[in-house]
Amino acid sequence: MAEAQDYTYVGTRPVRPDGIEKVTGKANYGADESRPGLIHGVVVRSTHAHALIEDIDVSEALALDGVYSVVTAADFPARDKISPARKRMFENIIAGHKVVYHGQPLAAVAASSVALAQKAADLVKVTYKALPVVLDMRDAMAPDASVLHDDMFTQGLPETPDKPSNVVQKTAIRKGDIDEGFAEADIVIEREFVTPMVHQGYIEPHACTADVNTDGHTTLWCSSQGHFGIRDMAALSLGMDAGDIRVVPQEIGGGFGGKTVVYLEPLAIKLSAKAGRPVKMVMPRDEVFRATGPASGTINTVKIGAKKDGTIVAAYANLLYEAGAFPGSPLGAGAMCIFAPYDIPNILIEGTEVVVNKPRVAAYRAPGAPQSMFAGESVLDELAQTLDMDPIDLRLKNAATKGTHAAYGPRFKDIGLVECLQAAKAHPNYQRALEKNQGRGVAVGFWFNAGNNSSAEVHVAESGMIQIVEGSPDIGGSRAAMALMAAETMQVPYDRIRVRIGDTDSTGFCNTTGGSRTTFATGMAVINACEDVVVQLKERAAITWGIDADQVDWRDGQAFPKPGVNTEAEPLTLAKLARSFPKTGGPISARASLNAQGPGPSFAVNFCDVEVDRETGSTQVLSFTAIQDAGRAIHPDYVEGQMQGGAAQGIGWALNEEYLFDENGILENPGFLDYRIPVASDLPMIDTQIIEVHNDTHPYGVRGVGETPIIAPLAAVGNAVSRALGIRMSDLPLSPPKVLAIIDGQ
Amino acid sequence: MAEAQDYTYVGTRPVRPDGIEKVTGKANYGADESRPGLIHGVVVRSTHAHALIEDIDVSEALALDGVYSVVTAADFPARDKISPARKRMFENIIAGHKVVYHGQPLAAVAASSVALAQKAADLVKVTYKALPVVLDMRDAMAPDASVLHDDMFTQGLPETPDKPSNVVQKTAIRKGDIDEGFAEADIVIEREFVTPMVHQGYIEPHACTADVNTDGHTTLWCSSQGHFGIRDMAALSLGMDAGDIRVVPQEIGGGFGGKTVVYLEPLAIKLSAKAGRPVKMVMPRDEVFRATGPASGTINTVKIGAKKDGTIVAAYANLLYEAGAFPGSPLGAGAMCIFAPYDIPNILIEGTEVVVNKPRVAAYRAPGAPQSMFAGESVLDELAQTLDMDPIDLRLKNAATKGTHAAYGPRFKDIGLVECLQAAKAHPNYQRALEKNQGRGVAVGFWFNAGNNSSAEVHVAESGMIQIVEGSPDIGGSRAAMALMAAETMQVPYDRIRVRIGDTDSTGFCNTTGGSRTTFATGMAVINACEDVVVQLKERAAITWGIDADQVDWRDGQAFPKPGVNTEAEPLTLAKLARSFPKTGGPISARASLNAQGPGPSFAVNFCDVEVDRETGSTQVLSFTAIQDAGRAIHPDYVEGQMQGGAAQGIGWALNEEYLFDENGILENPGFLDYRIPVASDLPMIDTQIIEVHNDTHPYGVRGVGETPIIAPLAAVGNAVSRALGIRMSDLPLSPPKVLAIIDGQ
Repeated sequence: MAEAQDYTYVGTRPVRPDGIEKVTGKANYGADESRPGLIHGVVVRSTHAHALIEDIDVSEALALDGVYSVVTAADFPARDKISPARKRMFENIIAGHKVVYHGQPLAAVAASSVALAQKAADLVKVTYKALPVVLDMRDAMAPDASVLHDDMFTQGLPETPDKPSNVVQKTAIRKGDIDEGFAEADIVIEREFVTPMVHQGYIEPHACTADVNTDGHTTLWCSSQGHFGIRDMAALSLGMDAGDIRVVPQEIGGGFGGKTVVYLEPLAIKLSAKAGRPVKMVMPRDEVFRATGPASGTINTVKIGAKKDGTIVAAYANLLYEAGAFPGSPLGAGAMCIFAPYDIPNILIEGTEVVVNKPRVAAYRAPGAPQSMFAGESVLDELAQTLDMDPIDLRLKNAATKGTHAAYGPRFKDIGLVECLQAAKAHPNYQRALEKNQGRGVAVGFWFNAGNNSSAEVHVAESGMIQIVEGSPDIGGSRAAMALMAAETMQVPYDRIRVRIGDTDSTGFCNTTGGSRTTFATGMAVINACEDVVVQLKERAAITWGIDADQVDWRDGQAFPKPGVNTEAEPLTLAKLARSFPKTGGPISARASLNAQGPGPSFAVNFCDVEVDRETGSTQVLSFTAIQDAGRAIHPDYVEGQMQGGAAQGIGWALNEEYLFDENGILENPGFLDYRIPVASDLPMIDTQIIEVHNDTHPYGVRGVGETPIIAPLAAVGNAVSRALGIRMSDLPLSPPKVLAIIDGQ
Repeated sequence: MAEAQDYTYVGTRPVRPDGIEKVTGKANYGADESRPGLIHGVVVRSTHAHALIEDIDVSEALALDGVYSVVTAADFPARDKISPARKRMFENIIAGHKVVYHGQPLAAVAASSVALAQKAADLVKVTYKALPVVLDMRDAMAPDASVLHDDMFTQGLPETPDKPSNVVQKTAIRKGDIDEGFAEADIVIEREFVTPMVHQGYIEPHACTADVNTDGHTTLWCSSQGHFGIRDMAALSLGMDAGDIRVVPQEIGGGFGGKTVVYLEPLAIKLSAKAGRPVKMVMPRDEVFRATGPASGTINTVKIGAKKDGTIVAAYANLLYEAGAFPGSPLGAGAMCIFAPYDIPNILIEGTEVVVNKPRVAAYRAPGAPQSMFAGESVLDELAQTLDMDPIDLRLKNAATKGTHAAYGPRFKDIGLVECLQAAKAHPNYQRALEKNQGRGVAVGFWFNAGNNSSAEVHVAESGMIQIVEGSPDIGGSRAAMALMAAETMQVPYDRIRVRIGDTDSTGFCNTTGGSRTTFATGMAVINACEDVVVQLKERAAITWGIDADQVDWRDGQAFPKPGVNTEAEPLTLAKLARSFPKTGGPISARASLNAQGPGPSFAVNFCDVEVDRETGSTQVLSFTAIQDAGRAIHPDYVEGQMQGGAAQGIGWALNEEYLFDENGILENPGFLDYRIPVASDLPMIDTQIIEVHNDTHPYGVRGVGETPIIAPLAAVGNAVSRALGIRMSDLPLSPPKVLAIIDGQ
């Protein structure tokens, strides 16, 4: 493949196509669709965190003037035809016989205004029989614990147990012999770490508008990370054919994994079908916190054994992940990632997933990895301290390289960890002298990345404008990335390319944007389709000149006869060729689809300097440096943006964010005043450095970059605070009261 | 090709996909789009039919509170960069230095309400210098006539004349030697015919909403017969790149050729750009009549010479077509069609196009042909009377057949005129005995049909639903036709197919729907893309079974191993194959585009029985029989619907419709109360009979069917009235006062 300097468009930083619409407020987000005759839906939510539902009486609500429709679980008979595991997924959309967390939907009401719908919702009478609330994972695992799901039996045991349990599954990843490994160690460090349930904190709440035709054909406008996924989940929950739901993607105001799930959409569709009108639903902020999918809280124990020279010989982890009220924790990914950056001969990672009476978790950016790697990277830091090694040197000594066999399965191809570590060590920020109460923390992040299914179409307008249609929402600048890859492939200027996100009826299937797959996989579909456009353009030039297509060169966005062929012919620009399409065979379009393989893992090295105020327990982040292998940064601004955004979220997770429940399982901080995400004044400028170690499976070398950035910050901040205080921190968030208590408790 | 009985889906009559939306009122038409911040635009129109514009003062309008923007011709500098011929097209959008018809746009105003915008429009002060108004074509051709366009010189003369003229062009079509032909004739009949300017009478007025982004990127919602054409014309008038305008097609409430032109769209775009808000414009009905494109009024002289046995030896026509205020009459098509149904050795067709101070004409269903063929078919009827021949027999004697060399150029392949004539003669309606004051008229219609550029994409959803995207608006049931052809090609049930009309950014280029091209050309693109889907499905089945793709059969919508291959394999349904797409290579999509050749001309034979009330001059249509060669009727309901709709419009044209101008060129009947189109009680049930003579250039034999139906009714009705009264009618419409005057004048 070509080196970076060979690219004309890839690696440049043009204005994103959707930038002006978004900055001026013209862009349409989830709540921005309207329709003639629109009515408004609100959700009736459980006031108990664990209870049997004895009765739901909607008669008073329905009798209210201006109320058009009410739905309960009885309106979703399709759920009774699917497996218990899938059915549980739909209990999270609307509860049947019991509720398992506070805020779980029980009914939904549609009325002529939001206020009226809320009034009607308040008239829905629910009779509960309260059950004991289980909030702590270790309590939930106790033999006498109140069981959330009578039909759920622990998976992953040698034999299926004979009684239900709150333990969803047990897992293990093994490499080498863990006991022999520890036996070889000169030094062993073991520690338990706790991370809280946190929310992604996207600014845009969940919102959708559904419009159901008399024949059942349905249009759904919503913002999501994947409108095909929304379509398929909504169809499944409603017993509809996916092809009868058209999902029109709206712009997304943040998702970070949390907008991969349906909450309101099936309710809005059913309310619309019953009302015969379009129905809009928008979650209030407190419902976003109470009843969408946060990240798992975890309790993780890590034990690492090393030789005196720093060679790690054994690594053990016991990971305990809470799923919330229904299975679905990212335990698996947490286990895959924890020791993946290192070439360790003996590894054992044991995992347990547990349900508790909290909202069901959803993906949150590199789901599962920040929690496990906080534990792993903290123990490594302690090991470096114990060995009096530079923490980067310790990691360099053990770093995975090409050929390393990762415990979770693959043997790595070209990867960029060593390059990132070397860049970190050489970085000016790493040379700064630390003052009193200051500490520097280093951590590595790792994400395996995903490929999956993508499609794209390309049309050449009569003016020669290139029109790309694809089905991956633009979450982090993907329109710009697609346009740059198209520009590079066709050697057509970036500003001659338009990118549209097609609805589910109008473009080929694309999996949900997640796993940092879109620039990689949808990008490959775009590149393949553009390559076909070039083939067709050369054929048209050949027709024009009366020569063979293989006698045509394509460069600088123009067709040339090859040297020695028809030397008098003037080059044909794209615009000229486009004007002659009717004469040379009709319009030019192209398409491609694939299940993309080989996404290329991404490594990051983060380090940060903090200063802890011993009077207040408050931590100030003085500097934060994020270094990451992007394979190839198609649009470096948006790679840096991902790195900066991940760092900001990771710092929030490390220092302040946490779900606070009372003993009844009621969330006490369901709003941004009490749930404290970092604001601009909390953060320094996040310094970034992109490393580019080509990923051979992608034409331009892309690796996914969206998830890795959030992984290392938890441990980088934790290690920095630990070093500033001289006390090993193990319980997030490192909020002022907690840090102060630790200082005072010394 | 397969015979009719071999088809599973083609030729059946399922419910159209858009039927329920349209019947229940859910479908969105041109005026139905709304946007946050929407404002409303109205047009300031000329109060003179011919005048110089000395000044336009918009200051008072702009000063009105709630007015956001005003535009005049000065806001369209792009018009100065194009040729005079094209510039004239844009004078029809907004006038520059002079107005040439009453109602011509001079300015447009956008304000917070329609009422306020109208108030502001009334405040725009225009100073005119009146010029003589020319309404009659022969007056316009006089040497001293007031000339509409100083820079327009007659085309088609041996030498370009040295002074401007209202004569746009002179044309001629020649075959054989016309003088020798007439010399051979035993009988010659010559007569002049007049047809009035008429309007298409679509129920939905022109309407659009434009939303211009700060960077100029524009979205336009409108109904039209071709959103790509709207895009390109709007871009040209605004000096924009077509790729910067996205036109989202709305459902169309009738177009019939009249919605192939831009009127409001450039104004709405410019108003939106200046206002920074979305702008909606909807024409009031009187503006539709005054200032959109009606059909040309004509004065046509036809002279036919025949042998005593009815053999036609010479045919001459002199066609005079009014263009309205700007060039663009369908004279050419009128000339092509007039004698095309007959194998005549000597033909001369001379044509003249003239501008007058009336609205510029636009296409109206088979543009130009109803007028010329009214003349031709009337003279043929008179010839049959004179020769005492059955009018069908006269036509059978001279009918064009395979191999006939049409005067306008082609040598016909398989055509269905003889079959239509024979069917007419055998039809029970043709046997009915006529009573007093009743007459039966026969006429032939001919349209050459168009092919042109079309594209289509097909996506296979995960559920196996087939999703077709194409860029031709659904005017007469084309979604149903596309779905049926797709069903046939893939052998997938019709109800498993969805068809979407893509916007201009989201699907490949399709020419405007006109010339009866869509079922033929876009249909071929759909068929080609579906054939590619089947190829891919067979490949996926082969991967699943571990055999070669050429060992797979596709039938009944399923893959089978060929006899003798892997005989134990279960057939793979589309749904099963779709579920396995991720394992077999990713999603399946396909696309095709083409410039379709060989559309296949379409012939019709119409006959009708009328009774004329000699007291009132009123004509009642007792029965009307439309017989037409459809090549292959994909969905017979919609072919019959075209035939019935064309007949209804043709009957209205024959009997009642006409533009009535006062001496100042002001239209006196700009509304459906005074411009009388037929209502249900005016018409009998139109009887139809579809003839199917396969068109070999289309996989299912399709010929275009939308335009031919309107051609023969004018002459069929005219001939029937002539025979009922025993007086040759030559001046349309045959309205009661005119007929009464003729009766009284005998």
